[in-house]
Amino acid sequence: MQFDTLDDIRAFCRDLPGGDERAAEAAALRQQNLTKPPGSLGRLEETAIWLARWQARELPRLERVTIAVFAGNHGVADRGVSAYPQAVTGQMVANFAAGGAAINQLAAVAGARLRVIPLDLDRPTADFTEAPAMDEDAFLRAVATGYDTVPADADLVCLGEMGIGNTTAAAAIAAALFGGGGARWAGRGTGVDDHGLARKRAAIDMALSCHAGILGDPLHVAATLGGRELAAMLGAALAARRQRIPVLIDGFVCTAALAPLARLRNDGLAHAVAAHVSAEAAHRALLDELGLKPLIDLGMRLGEASGAAVAALILRAAVACHTGMATFAEAGVSDKV
Amino acid sequence: MQFDTLDDIRAFCRDLPGGDERAAEAAALRQQNLTKPPGSLGRLEETAIWLARWQARELPRLERVTIAVFAGNHGVADRGVSAYPQAVTGQMVANFAAGGAAINQLAAVAGARLRVIPLDLDRPTADFTEAPAMDEDAFLRAVATGYDTVPADADLVCLGEMGIGNTTAAAAIAAALFGGGGARWAGRGTGVDDHGLARKRAAIDMALSCHAGILGDPLHVAATLGGRELAAMLGAALAARRQRIPVLIDGFVCTAALAPLARLRNDGLAHAVAAHVSAEAAHRALLDELGLKPLIDLGMRLGEASGAAVAALILRAAVACHTGMATFAEAGVSDKV
Repeated sequence: MQFDTLDDIRAFCRDLPGGDERAAEAAALRQQNLTKPPGSLGRLEETAIWLARWQARELPRLERVTIAVFAGNHGVADRGVSAYPQAVTGQMVANFAAGGAAINQLAAVAGARLRVIPLDLDRPTADFTEAPAMDEDAFLRAVATGYDTVPADADLVCLGEMGIGNTTAAAAIAAALFGGGGARWAGRGTGVDDHGLARKRAAIDMALSCHAGILGDPLHVAATLGGRELAAMLGAALAARRQRIPVLIDGFVCTAALAPLARLRNDGLAHAVAAHVSAEAAHRALLDELGLKPLIDLGMRLGEASGAAVAALILRAAVACHTGMATFAEAGVSDKV
Repeated sequence: MQFDTLDDIRAFCRDLPGGDERAAEAAALRQQNLTKPPGSLGRLEETAIWLARWQARELPRLERVTIAVFAGNHGVADRGVSAYPQAVTGQMVANFAAGGAAINQLAAVAGARLRVIPLDLDRPTADFTEAPAMDEDAFLRAVATGYDTVPADADLVCLGEMGIGNTTAAAAIAAALFGGGGARWAGRGTGVDDHGLARKRAAIDMALSCHAGILGDPLHVAATLGGRELAAMLGAALAARRQRIPVLIDGFVCTAALAPLARLRNDGLAHAVAAHVSAEAAHRALLDELGLKPLIDLGMRLGEASGAAVAALILRAAVACHTGMATFAEAGVSDKV
């Protein structure tokens, strides 16, 4: 995919497909006839119907699940906003390649294919307290890279990231889109101490002040306050929507990265479900702003698509019940009195 | 196992083992060294350590997971407290055998062996608004049956049930143990209407009044207000504790069935984790009374160990991370600055 200007993305967004309501209705009807009280599987029923809608088939499948983890480095990390040195981004990418990270284990349990995409790790974005993190060209290239990562035949895509400093970028995007400054949106990320948290809040407020002129435009916000891995997740979400592939959103950074799509069109994230609410302080507020209801709440705050991979297990349970259960008629079970 | 009197169970409870704190400490130390910020896997870390404690090994495993679903019939069902006829209990047992129920699909996804144990379905318990649901002998036999269901080599046991009318029994037990009457503890179960809910509340209050003399004794409460499948779950939980096998508690009925153990000794449920909080209205209150924090909250209210089976997937994720991840030293990743 090639986007030459931000307007290309805007035009692309205007032309996105909706879900398949006939498939969703057929799936909902099927759920009513399975051997259980109607609604008693709760969100397993909801998500099965959601998968049916976006896969455009009454019986959704999860044969090809892709987990895409994008990695990027951030100039703002030099301001001491993280508990870890910037070198950890590249070291963790090597750990992903060697199979030693959490997401490697979780992808195996979830029966998913893991793709790790490092984005110019040796060229961190600019420190956004002083200049736009990315120029338009760098942003568009990262969006396109993310777009091209999504396999056309995927049944589900889980999005995630790795990038020292990127909860600062995510908080800045959230602040720009939904109001409130560093105090509302900065959290402890990988575990920054009180001094680091204060620096993080200050960096966000400096960025909002420095770039006050562009805060009304979601794509300018993503380019100016984001990072390459966030832009790539946005691009991957666009690709999934274009191809009607359902998406699991990971944690705070992933949610912030995709938030501009909800600003570009009201149903911009209709094909996506929030996998979890993370322990990062502002994630719940961000999900609330977006009207997203997380599937799980396990106090996770790792990133790497780890929450999305765990939630993919819930979707496997949902699909197994939806496709494998007998109906009342098939099983000879009496319906309600 | 044979219990000849309620006192046999009381004596048995006094002599139960605790967890293996050395294994738990080794597991906690291991978690600190894995390539992630400490604590960032949240409850995946907690549950890995809990499994290590009760399996008495630093690296817990989930090779042999047993799901035990007990089924029973209830005299109180004749009072119109359920949305479904009593015949559904046996019909669903047949559905389990044929592989058509939710739990069949979920057991397969969870890599678990499913055991279904019907308990004298053709002889419902007595209507507990008028007489004890079970005499002592019937109760003790059901407890023993549950006890003998747990394989000595199980790595994890998921407990669940099927029984038309059994949320009424569960609510009566909860009321007896924790106070408040039918208004506090009765919910809609399989989906009873307002009239049915009123009958359910009334039945619970009648039972509490009829059996006021035994409400102070947890085992008498279980025998008088419970049912065979609840007694069997209690027995299975005892067997698991005796053999230090961790347990996943399913929904409202399962939680109520095991609640007497927490009354017999403070740490009576230390080897058990609440799989989920169900949509049955009073489940959260019951978990709160027991100090249990559910792993997931998916609006499920089916029983059949369905919530426990889904939560077993979370434990698989926890064990995979705990046992498969590299340490900082192994991966050459920098620790905190």
